[in-house]
Amino acid sequence: MNELTEIGKRAKEASKQLAHLNTDQKNQVLLLAAELLERSIPDLLEANAADLKQGEDMGLKGAIVERLSLTDDRIRGIAEGLREIVQLEDPIGEIEEMKKRPNGLLIGKKRVPLGVVGVIYESRPNVTADVAGLCIKTGNVCVLRGGKEAFHSNNALVKIFHKAIFECGLDPHMVQLVQDTSRESAIAMMKLNAYLDILIPRGGAGLIQAVVQNSTVPVIETGVGNCHIYVDEAADLEKAVAIVYNAKTHRPGVCNAAESLLIHKKVAVEVLPDIGKALKEGKVEIRGDRWTCELVPDATSATEEDWSTEYLDLIISSKVVGSVEEAVDHINRYGSMHSESIITENYSHAQYFLDRVDAAAVYVNASTRFTDGFEFGYGAEIGISTQKLHARGPMGLKELTTSKYIIYGSGQTR
Amino acid sequence: MNELTEIGKRAKEASKQLAHLNTDQKNQVLLLAAELLERSIPDLLEANAADLKQGEDMGLKGAIVERLSLTDDRIRGIAEGLREIVQLEDPIGEIEEMKKRPNGLLIGKKRVPLGVVGVIYESRPNVTADVAGLCIKTGNVCVLRGGKEAFHSNNALVKIFHKAIFECGLDPHMVQLVQDTSRESAIAMMKLNAYLDILIPRGGAGLIQAVVQNSTVPVIETGVGNCHIYVDEAADLEKAVAIVYNAKTHRPGVCNAAESLLIHKKVAVEVLPDIGKALKEGKVEIRGDRWTCELVPDATSATEEDWSTEYLDLIISSKVVGSVEEAVDHINRYGSMHSESIITENYSHAQYFLDRVDAAAVYVNASTRFTDGFEFGYGAEIGISTQKLHARGPMGLKELTTSKYIIYGSGQTR
Repeated sequence: MNELTEIGKRAKEASKQLAHLNTDQKNQVLLLAAELLERSIPDLLEANAADLKQGEDMGLKGAIVERLSLTDDRIRGIAEGLREIVQLEDPIGEIEEMKKRPNGLLIGKKRVPLGVVGVIYESRPNVTADVAGLCIKTGNVCVLRGGKEAFHSNNALVKIFHKAIFECGLDPHMVQLVQDTSRESAIAMMKLNAYLDILIPRGGAGLIQAVVQNSTVPVIETGVGNCHIYVDEAADLEKAVAIVYNAKTHRPGVCNAAESLLIHKKVAVEVLPDIGKALKEGKVEIRGDRWTCELVPDATSATEEDWSTEYLDLIISSKVVGSVEEAVDHINRYGSMHSESIITENYSHAQYFLDRVDAAAVYVNASTRFTDGFEFGYGAEIGISTQKLHARGPMGLKELTTSKYIIYGSGQTR
Repeated sequence: MNELTEIGKRAKEASKQLAHLNTDQKNQVLLLAAELLERSIPDLLEANAADLKQGEDMGLKGAIVERLSLTDDRIRGIAEGLREIVQLEDPIGEIEEMKKRPNGLLIGKKRVPLGVVGVIYESRPNVTADVAGLCIKTGNVCVLRGGKEAFHSNNALVKIFHKAIFECGLDPHMVQLVQDTSRESAIAMMKLNAYLDILIPRGGAGLIQAVVQNSTVPVIETGVGNCHIYVDEAADLEKAVAIVYNAKTHRPGVCNAAESLLIHKKVAVEVLPDIGKALKEGKVEIRGDRWTCELVPDATSATEEDWSTEYLDLIISSKVVGSVEEAVDHINRYGSMHSESIITENYSHAQYFLDRVDAAAVYVNASTRFTDGFEFGYGAEIGISTQKLHARGPMGLKELTTSKYIIYGSGQTR
């Protein structure tokens, strides 16, 4: 993979410059890129049209075409996203926990960029600009490997970044797009330890597992969300119906949407028909266990596979359980450690659920749809980590950094 | 690998109990284990003698035998280490950054155990007890896979932990030792994603690279330390000689020992002979570039390989450089991102070195030997991370944890 080696070398070189820019310089690039994006809407739409045309020829349809499409509004949204990143505090350079040791050494932890961030993603071109923006702000060079469906759109977006970077007098190789969109290039990127400090897959479960299984570069697993809502025996049933409806239907194609419903048997008879009615109005298909099917006439039978499926669609699985313990066991067994919620007015059940569910975000009486950088108050995010190392939950600017100890001595030896 | 699957299942099960113990319960286990260790010194020495005998038959010698050996003092030291862990603050359960969002959601980050920690190590039996102690304190189950050289010693140590855990009424599977010490078992452990949350290799560069290359379980790279001392043109030369001598000879077999020396050309003529003399007294072999060899009569010629070698022995490589920039470039190229030190009285050179050297710990005017959990004030450590994800530098109790967001709602939907 000659292309990747070349990209890697240039990335390392660009990293030396980018890591040491001050915040004003980085913000200047982002503001200019935002402006150029808005000025280039016709060009971007044209590039996107080429992708859509090609997609049609490839037989793409439905959700993929929807994710691939750029519109005037979406491009303005991307530019707005960059301006929001400008507003966020730059974490780089902050020195934490500086302290003087008994021997006089002054030791602190300085926040520094990771270095070179690789991202492998699928059809959404906005990922190109989001990642570039977050990486520039945190002093990280990014190596982007988008899907072939979005080839023209991604190149058009990167061209705008290059123009902005170049006009600011900086090295355009701080943002690079891999031109080879073959499967082989993705695999080669997963072995690029000499140049990549971290690799983040963004896309469906298949892509993410391929990266986890094949990458020797350290990976952050993101995004797969088989999220549950558990309606406890002590639930406020009105809240339960509203939260289930919201978590499932508000935006079914995203990772924090609910995919599975657990209902305590003591309230199932009362609440399941109402939930069924609400979901029916939302055009949601229910795949249930025996009890669900008895209580919701439209429900079809769930198979074992349904319990671990992230539908990303207007489908939900549903199961009646005997206790909060059973609900927690089910979630820890079938969930993807993303976002889980209990609906209850019982203090001990709430605390038990918060303690025992092993996930990035655990809720009491709220929709899982809140697991998001903006909703949590951290701003734009590069993904939602569902692993335990480095970062868990929404990954914002700080999660794109690491630390180094800096030690001021005056001749100390041991 | 049936043994590993069984171990993994039991580990997951034990994790449910261990993760929710309170600090007193965990400390009780550690104190009892320390007491039993001291009471079992004859048994431990006997088991260790069996390993040493077997090692003799296998032809082991020198440093490996030294690392393998237990003595009365060393066992007391291990017990003392457990008591020190008892004194450290338990990070588990702490809730950080709890804040109320505009919509009323109360969001906090709770510190929780990683879950199941796998450690692959070589001949040092004390690693068994250190890891078990650190993991118990942080609510993590550990799966230990030590070297076959230490088989009897490791089993004797784990037996003592099992006794302590059992006497406290808890599940002994919170500490498990893999009995199969074949290469195959190590490889199988690297693929045990279903049960291991993290894998930490502790040992030489070969072991660590094998784990990085083969593991699909998230890895923390630890310990390889090709550490440099750069004597700047503005160095206090007396400090320079003392620091070089200390960093190289104080304990040459450890990862924070200096392995390479860089000297600015303007001070080389004056200081290199003195450094050469001091190192000669310390029985250190010098492998130098042309300039070093001219200035230090006993030095032999370094090859390209020497620049990237971690000797872990009384050997040091030495090179004369033309500027602080050249020194930094050399370190970033050949170093292992562990610990690096500049000796200088020049403010700008010191800041440049601190900024530009990409390593876990960067020093001004001090020996690299201080990169250590106790010296940094964090207490016992499970290793020194030389990677950028999750943890960098000495990994203490906090680095054996992750976080989960807990969200208290009152019916919020989006």
